[in-house]
Parts: sequence; C-alpha cells; structure tokens
Amino acid sequence: MSEQLKFAQKVLQAQPFSRLLGAELSAFEPGKAELRLAIKADLQQQHGFVHGGVLSYLADNALTFAGGSMLENNALTGEFKINYLRPAVGDMLIARATVKYAGKQQAVSQCDVFVVKDGEEKLCAVAQGTIVKV
Amino acid sequence: MSEQLKFAQKVLQAQPFSRLLGAELSAFEPGKAELRLAIKADLQQQHGFVHGGVLSYLADNALTFAGGSMLENNALTGEFKINYLRPAVGDMLIARATVKYAGKQQAVSQCDVFVVKDGEEKLCAVAQGTIVKV
Amino acid sequence: MSEQLKFAQKVLQAQPFSRLLGAELSAFEPGKAELRLAIKADLQQQHGFVHGGVLSYLADNALTFAGGSMLENNALTGEFKINYLRPAVGDMLIARATVKYAGKQQAVSQCDVFVVKDGEEKLCAVAQGTIVKV
Amino acid sequence: MSEQLKFAQKVLQAQPFSRLLGAELSAFEPGKAELRLAIKADLQQQHGFVHGGVLSYLADNALTFAGGSMLENNALTGEFKINYLRPAVGDMLIARATVKYAGKQQAVSQCDVFVVKDGEEKLCAVAQGTIVKV
Repeated sequence: MSEQLKFAQKVLQAQPFSRLLGAELSAFEPGKAELRLAIKADLQQQHGFVHGGVLSYLADNALTFAGGSMLENNALTGEFKINYLRPAVGDMLIARATVKYAGKQQAVSQCDVFVVKDGEEKLCAVAQGTIVKV
Repeated sequence: MSEQLKFAQKVLQAQPFSRLLGAELSAFEPGKAELRLAIKADLQQQHGFVHGGVLSYLADNALTFAGGSMLENNALTGEFKINYLRPAVGDMLIARATVKYAGKQQAVSQCDVFVVKDGEEKLCAVAQGTIVKV
Repeated sequence: MSEQLKFAQKVLQAQPFSRLLGAELSAFEPGKAELRLAIKADLQQQHGFVHGGVLSYLADNALTFAGGSMLENNALTGEFKINYLRPAVGDMLIARATVKYAGKQQAVSQCDVFVVKDGEEKLCAVAQGTIVKV
Repeated sequence: MSEQLKFAQKVLQAQPFSRLLGAELSAFEPGKAELRLAIKADLQQQHGFVHGGVLSYLADNALTFAGGSMLENNALTGEFKINYLRPAVGDMLIARATVKYAGKQQAVSQCDVFVVKDGEEKLCAVAQGTIVKV
C-alpha cells in the first residue's frame, strides 16, 4: 500500500461521520480517489433503497479526496451537484472520482457512484464539484 | 399539529438513515418543509465542523419533502446542487426548503441550511434541486 | 440614476456578447442586480421558445453582476446551475439575482428569470452559482 | 455523412439562436454529440475572453443533442450545471457530450468544452445535466 493511500485513509478515519457510515478509501493517487461503503439497513430510506443522502455524502467525499490530492491534501468541497440515476439496492457502493482540472487554489472533480449487487456494478449517481484549498 | 405534518413526520421516521442521524421534521405545509438536526460529535469531519455530507443529506431531504408536498407526497430527488458557505459549528442545523415551481410530474425547490449557535442562526449552505413524482 | 448603476451599465456595454443579444442592466446595488432582454426572433430555438442558452446567459450574467457588487466589481462566474421551469414565450426576459453569501474572495448568488408576456411576469428559470473575485 | 448526423444538423439549423452564434454539429451518434463554434469578437466579454454565456449555451446544446439521441430525438434540457475552468481564448470551441444514463423519459449527460488555440485543445469548462423527453 502506498504512503499516499495510508495517509488519506487516516484522514478518512479522522472523520467521525465517515466512521459512523463505515466508508473506506480503497484507492488514492494524484487526481483520483475511490471510496467504498458497505450497504447496511440503517443507510436506507423508506422504500428500502440507499438514502440519497448517503450517495451524496459518498460522492462529496470522493470529489474532495480526489481534488485534495492535487491541492496538497488540505481541501474542502466548495460546492457540488449530483444526479441520481437509479435506486441503489445491493451490497456495496463504490464512488470513483477524477480531477478534471486543478489550479493552485481549487480543483474541479467528477464522480461516478456505482452500486454493486451480486458482483455486478451499476452506475447509480454522477456528481461534479469544486474543491477549494484550505 | 396538522395532519399533514404528522403524516410527513411518519415518512421521515420510516427512513432508517434519518433516524440514524436524528433528523426531525419541524414544519410541513404545501410548498414548504423544515428539518432540524441536533449536531453530535459523530456528524463531524476531521476539523470538528459538521461533515458536508450531513449538510447535503439535510438539504436533499428538505428539498424532497417540500417538493413532495406538491406531488401527492410521493416523490424522490432527481438531482440537486449545494454550495457550502461557512463551516458549520454549533448546536443545531435547520434546513428550510421552498418550492419555486411545481408541475404535474416534478417540482423545483430551493433550500437554505442554517447552523444555530448560542441561539443565533447563520446561513451555512444553499441548495437547489429537482423533485420527481414516483 | 446611481453612479453604481452607471458604472455597471458601462461594464455590460463593454461585453460584445451582451450587446449582440441586447441585454440591459435595469438595477444594480450591493447584493442585487437585474438584467432585461427584449425577446427577438433570433434568440429562439426550433419550437419558437427562447433558447435555453439565452436564459443561461442571462442568469449567468445576473449572478455575476450581483456577486461582483460584493467583490469590488471585478469578478467572474466560477460555476452555476440552472433549472428551466417553463418554455419562455413573450416579450421580455427579466433576471433578478441576489447574493446569498459574500466572503472576501467569492460570493454565492441566486437568480430568478422571468418571462414577461402581456405585462404578466412568469418565473421560467432559477439559477445558483459561485462568483469569484479576479 | 450518416442520416442521423444530417437530421440533427437540420435541427440545429432550425434554431435561430444557434445560427446567430454560428454553431455547427460536427458529430452525432447514439449517446454522443459534438458541437463546434468559431470564436468571433462579438462572442466575447469585457476582458476579451469568450463570454461564459457562450460556453454555457454550447454545453447546454451539446448535452441536449447527446441526451436527445437516446430519447427519440425530441428532448429539452431540464437543468444543467457548468464549471468554468479557464478563460477561453482562441480560434474555436468544441463541446463533446456523452450520455451517462438514459431511461425512457430522461437522460443524464456530461459535456467537456474545449478551446482550440494554435491547433491545441484545452479543456475550459465541464457540464452535467438532465435532458427530458418532450
């Protein structure tokens, strides 16, 4: 495991909210980040789908880690937008974020969120946002 | 308490994720919804601020309840966008959403998210999104 | 007419694209801006509605003027989002933008775009965006 | 040239606003669309960059053509979001849009907008939006 990934995993583990939900950082390199989250009953809404707020949390965090990788690893989300594509039902969520542009003070990232069911990944949300250096 | 508010509170309580976070619906009428969330340690990120994912969850849910009030109370968020304005530090979050437009199949809502500290409300995020009838 | 409004009108007139479309700045004060645009045939799309790109131009520009009023009048749009609510058919567009938050380096504004037909205003788009000091 | 591309080019030419700006559809197939726009003086803002409203027009239109290709070619933009990355200075704009998801009633597309200067393409904006079947 790279030093970069270890460092970023510590940052994630320092977020109480990410521990509450159970998010894990599965990949991290300059311009890219991947978060995973096992789907549990208490992450659902009233129809048994993963709550949109969980998808938006995961997208937001993946966007920020990706952007932060280009901003000396000290960054916050300034804003983002998410489109929900399908109800998320399955075993696991995977959010993969990529930096589209990085300047000195901010970066713009995009993120695809997949739900994994029976080993198959389906795209369930796409997001785009601005990450600002602290 | 109105029947509408009681009904909408039951919907919120039927969301396991909203129970996990502790959200409460404090107002609900046609075209408007207000959610409250007591700030606890496990809703924070690594700097002690409320995690952006909590703000986005609350905005998303308030947008949906407001939009749903104009769509026969059966609706999902199709997409939304949020701008984070200030670090959220305090005792309580309040999200107030208002419908800007409602058609037969979808509505567009805006939401202001405030953090309350020592009795004072400060705007910490603004959101806008599309709510789709199920 | 205030000196502020005169100054901002000169900025608008210094934009060749705004002259091409015929936009006018009808109000400008700290935290607020209003743009007007007479609807002409060459601003339409194939169904006779005003082209969405015209609405997005007008919203973008109103967001920027409003935000710029809080950022020493020297600012650019960093990003924005727009929801189209109704087909725009009529005589005139009016975009009214308000600043929701202003810091030292950036501001966040919201904008309502109305179409005026037979003297009646109808909301046809809402937008939200980030304005960055140059 | 494919029949699809010819058909879509006719739609674009039926938009008076697209003729006013001089947009051309350079590629069109299921799930993809590419628009080009020669940069002229009257598309600029006060600093000599292409006006943001031109970039948003081009992104909006490319998102819609891409989405429409999956929705029986009869669709409107419901909403979109754009991040401006760099001042656009050069000879030509190219907007390339791709569908990320298509259902029966709507599609979600993303678009990269490039500015071409001295034969080199630079990414100057990214957009994401919802296209709705008419």
